[in-house]
Amino acid sequence: MIKVGIYGATGYTGYELVKLLQRHPAAEIVFATSQSYAGKTLADVFPAAPALPLIAGEDALLDGVDCVFLCLPHAAAAATAVTALEAGVRVIDLSADFRLRDASTYTEWYAHTHPAPELLAEAVYGLTEVFRDDLPGARLVANPGCYPTSVLLALRPLLLSDIVISGPIIADSKSGVSGAGRTPTATTHFVEVADNFSPYKIGRSHRHLPEMEQAIHWWRNDAPSLIFSPHLLPTPRGILSTLYVTLGEDVAEGDLRDLYTDAYMEEPFVRVLPAGQQASLAHVNHTNQCAIGLTLVGRTLILTSAIDNLVKGAAGQAIQNMNVVFGCPETYGLM
Amino acid sequence: MIKVGIYGATGYTGYELVKLLQRHPAAEIVFATSQSYAGKTLADVFPAAPALPLIAGEDALLDGVDCVFLCLPHAAAAATAVTALEAGVRVIDLSADFRLRDASTYTEWYAHTHPAPELLAEAVYGLTEVFRDDLPGARLVANPGCYPTSVLLALRPLLLSDIVISGPIIADSKSGVSGAGRTPTATTHFVEVADNFSPYKIGRSHRHLPEMEQAIHWWRNDAPSLIFSPHLLPTPRGILSTLYVTLGEDVAEGDLRDLYTDAYMEEPFVRVLPAGQQASLAHVNHTNQCAIGLTLVGRTLILTSAIDNLVKGAAGQAIQNMNVVFGCPETYGLM
Amino acid sequence: MIKVGIYGATGYTGYELVKLLQRHPAAEIVFATSQSYAGKTLADVFPAAPALPLIAGEDALLDGVDCVFLCLPHAAAAATAVTALEAGVRVIDLSADFRLRDASTYTEWYAHTHPAPELLAEAVYGLTEVFRDDLPGARLVANPGCYPTSVLLALRPLLLSDIVISGPIIADSKSGVSGAGRTPTATTHFVEVADNFSPYKIGRSHRHLPEMEQAIHWWRNDAPSLIFSPHLLPTPRGILSTLYVTLGEDVAEGDLRDLYTDAYMEEPFVRVLPAGQQASLAHVNHTNQCAIGLTLVGRTLILTSAIDNLVKGAAGQAIQNMNVVFGCPETYGLM
Amino acid sequence: MIKVGIYGATGYTGYELVKLLQRHPAAEIVFATSQSYAGKTLADVFPAAPALPLIAGEDALLDGVDCVFLCLPHAAAAATAVTALEAGVRVIDLSADFRLRDASTYTEWYAHTHPAPELLAEAVYGLTEVFRDDLPGARLVANPGCYPTSVLLALRPLLLSDIVISGPIIADSKSGVSGAGRTPTATTHFVEVADNFSPYKIGRSHRHLPEMEQAIHWWRNDAPSLIFSPHLLPTPRGILSTLYVTLGEDVAEGDLRDLYTDAYMEEPFVRVLPAGQQASLAHVNHTNQCAIGLTLVGRTLILTSAIDNLVKGAAGQAIQNMNVVFGCPETYGLM
Repeated sequence: MIKVGIYGATGYTGYELVKLLQRHPAAEIVFATSQSYAGKTLADVFPAAPALPLIAGEDALLDGVDCVFLCLPHAAAAATAVTALEAGVRVIDLSADFRLRDASTYTEWYAHTHPAPELLAEAVYGLTEVFRDDLPGARLVANPGCYPTSVLLALRPLLLSDIVISGPIIADSKSGVSGAGRTPTATTHFVEVADNFSPYKIGRSHRHLPEMEQAIHWWRNDAPSLIFSPHLLPTPRGILSTLYVTLGEDVAEGDLRDLYTDAYMEEPFVRVLPAGQQASLAHVNHTNQCAIGLTLVGRTLILTSAIDNLVKGAAGQAIQNMNVVFGCPETYGLM
Repeated sequence: MIKVGIYGATGYTGYELVKLLQRHPAAEIVFATSQSYAGKTLADVFPAAPALPLIAGEDALLDGVDCVFLCLPHAAAAATAVTALEAGVRVIDLSADFRLRDASTYTEWYAHTHPAPELLAEAVYGLTEVFRDDLPGARLVANPGCYPTSVLLALRPLLLSDIVISGPIIADSKSGVSGAGRTPTATTHFVEVADNFSPYKIGRSHRHLPEMEQAIHWWRNDAPSLIFSPHLLPTPRGILSTLYVTLGEDVAEGDLRDLYTDAYMEEPFVRVLPAGQQASLAHVNHTNQCAIGLTLVGRTLILTSAIDNLVKGAAGQAIQNMNVVFGCPETYGLM
Repeated sequence: MIKVGIYGATGYTGYELVKLLQRHPAAEIVFATSQSYAGKTLADVFPAAPALPLIAGEDALLDGVDCVFLCLPHAAAAATAVTALEAGVRVIDLSADFRLRDASTYTEWYAHTHPAPELLAEAVYGLTEVFRDDLPGARLVANPGCYPTSVLLALRPLLLSDIVISGPIIADSKSGVSGAGRTPTATTHFVEVADNFSPYKIGRSHRHLPEMEQAIHWWRNDAPSLIFSPHLLPTPRGILSTLYVTLGEDVAEGDLRDLYTDAYMEEPFVRVLPAGQQASLAHVNHTNQCAIGLTLVGRTLILTSAIDNLVKGAAGQAIQNMNVVFGCPETYGLM
Repeated sequence: MIKVGIYGATGYTGYELVKLLQRHPAAEIVFATSQSYAGKTLADVFPAAPALPLIAGEDALLDGVDCVFLCLPHAAAAATAVTALEAGVRVIDLSADFRLRDASTYTEWYAHTHPAPELLAEAVYGLTEVFRDDLPGARLVANPGCYPTSVLLALRPLLLSDIVISGPIIADSKSGVSGAGRTPTATTHFVEVADNFSPYKIGRSHRHLPEMEQAIHWWRNDAPSLIFSPHLLPTPRGILSTLYVTLGEDVAEGDLRDLYTDAYMEEPFVRVLPAGQQASLAHVNHTNQCAIGLTLVGRTLILTSAIDNLVKGAAGQAIQNMNVVFGCPETYGLM
């Protein structure tokens, strides 16, 4: 039994982790923390939640756990990671703190000095399908962002191929509101979101951009730059990314489809859709799946890639990573 | 031309007032205030709004206006009303401050002493269809609450009749989220509201209860008590109240329908639906209409009453009242 | 392993059954039928569904199954039930065909003669919490309607007590759109439902009324009549019923709460909420739970009762019934 | 007074026309047709509609009208247009029948021979801002499609400039459900649309593609081909198109903004947003506005363009066209 602690259990991601871990046959929640609700239970926060006691972060006993999940704001996550690692506890961090390998890039995008730059080299980027071999026994996993998960799983087979790419890679992404967190703001007010649809931080201004480009360059050093345009959908959850990649040579759609089908054939959580089908939120919501559709029009490859931002885009992938780190079957708690 | 000032123009009610007044052939907005956005324009707050300059309340010049609308929190509204009345400006107050005639009832429900009890006797309760004769030339109008408007228009013909009512009057009301205001809270977060439906403050605990019972007793002194159960709907706007009244004698549905049809025959903004039809939000949203459906089952009269909470339940009725106060055609700006 | 067949697997209820049975540790789907999609798989109908083959009803082999679930229109369900029972297969019918014990009442509400009146006496009304003792080994279970499940679980402790009830029992119910089925109609068109909320068949005209009154009279022979007003919510799923019962004597709210708490203390799927809390869709959606809130105002008892119409109101309760019929732990596949 | 007839008044576009024409100071509805509801009134179809009598198309008297709006399926529209023109009545056709100048392109995309190819040369493409000079006195106006309106207004200033464009033009468009019409289908069922978001007919397979490319080539003969990917939004109305155009040379964002601001400076219904702002549905719904945001990232120009598909994308633009045809102020009925 993997004994688990959750820091920040009352956000949407933390609660999703609790729901998934309750069904996990080989993991057990030992503690769950919350700054705002310490002393209460999770049932006081979410009507359908179990009466899991919530404690303050500083009261969590690291002795009794094998692994902690960090659903904390950036910077706070890194500080807790340091403490946990010193106590010999493995860390799966769902914040952005260990996703970027370069501390100066982190500083540039997050506007403060990295709290633990010495750990960046060790952190495994937890896009499970890609870094599976680095995960067993890892001490520190940087769980990918939600948008990057949808974009990177869709791009990787192409980037690893030798098909020439010309022109920018465009990711037009649309996300449900839970991606914005549970803190009430004007942006997440029901009346502002319902019946509306709006772009935000488009182009090259969203914090997930450097995370995506870092991985893109791992896979193809000279890849063209990425244009990333997120939009806010009037749905509680789900991300659909529509990607446009201009190829520099003629390729047959069938060959591209084979490339993708081969890449993900063995994957339990990635599904390449048949010709003529596109990914939608209905393919993936409330599951740990990533659905990928593929269409070639002339030399433009259009990829549609859908995930549930709270599952494959956060809590589900975190558990998938935990499973690999601890040597469990990768699908435990996720089917 | 009626020269108008709006206090609190950046709430949902204030913005609705601006939209309606822009189409009004005999009114003109002279100023609009906002504490949070003073120095900006309404277009900075709502993407489709005009670039109406917003000033701080204390910078508003009462000299240039004939009438002010108060879309302010209670207590703040009363204080501003006093200032405006002293300057000879008529006041249409959309807060709760002048709705209850009894200062001690106000104190009981709003938990502070009434700031201007000397004005309570003068304030006209602006349920236009009912108090139309008291409005011409009135200095101070207390615009009714949204729930009370839907409930009272539906109950009044029955209460004024001599049909015996036995047992409690039950109002099961459902409101869209704009009724909760524009300040972001956990309750109005998109993810909490979407796909959900929840009762709140049911029974006899909502502040609109004493307002409704006050009017009920004006019309029938010995009326049974009211049970009022509001619920939050996952829609931006609209109220539907389903009312259950147990009659103490046998009545024919046709006679009841005649009673209602006669009562509202001349009214431009109240529509009694034909037999077999029930009111819905689609009947009334974005209009100043109240739609009323009527069904008799044994001795239980079921009334369905729908309004747009921001129009007939707030800004629309406020303009309807202004029209009568200033002797304009009542439908100006509202058709 | 209970071998199971599903008739009508491509409606919302049938699909929910498939999803729940996939997680059931002691049941296995042997066949799934569909008239419209025979020859295809369930994945052709729902993007996230498994590739379960769909066959025509007449091609289903009853030999290989222990139990069938009927998600068919009324009349069609009864005919299939007869065939299955003759083949020695147990039947859990999710249609209305065997809910009413009196064939003439059935004819009156469903406008055709009952196809198999000889089976009515044998059918067990599958409100599991109530008829649990009649279920083991039962050949034919009539799974309750969605509205009746929410209303009856909330009323039963009161009806079984000796507290006097005066005046009609009022159930003001609100349901998500999946309750209307998957056949596209003007009523279920997104544009008609979104931003809207509407009553329908209120009073005593909905087909679930006789089903509810039948059970009410089982529990209290002289109960007053029921007023039942359904409304259509702009949500995919969930039912909230707000019930108003006028008591004929003074009772303490604490005593009522004890009555309910005692009645459901041992129940895994019924949850009586603490004082001051009301049931909402968020308490129950995607679960087999019924949440019940209780408030006393004078002599009016207000009950709020929430279920997921597709789970506790249909497929979940059907599996709960199957579990008891076949002697499995009642919570199998449902936690 | 312009006397107007509406063919097909009970679709979403027809009803929107009725609502707008009721406020028009110089137009009057003489008849409204409906095949399904002939003999009833519009109030029987939409709860908030006026009691406008509906007649069968063949009973419409063309004598009494100056102008007809055709909200009919393609082919049916062309046939009615011929009849109306022969009777000396001007035609504003909201179907696709006269949008494509080339009858063989029409046949290719609409899978039947064009019913009146002799009229194609005469029809004015009613993108009002662009073809305003061709409209006065026109006999036949082809009102643009909803997607084309949002895409073409955003592209035109760039296409008319001498800025080099390289690579394909990408339009990633998202539309509310009313764009799919009022006929109930599986695609428009509330349960399928709510909480979902899905691409459809992406790449080069939607019928609006040839309409857009036709206009693109009018403005720049050698423009690169268009990639057009529509998506279905869970909202009743509104279109947002996010466009990506790769430029073949370095341009300053300020110069591009000037280009757009100058192009639309005098336009009452096109609004170029200031730097840093993007178009959203909230900018335009329930108005005849097109809002355009502009961002330059390297050599990629990102345009966001929003309209209400039922207003600027259909009924509103139709009235705007009527105003110009008949010499009325262009904003009549639309502000």
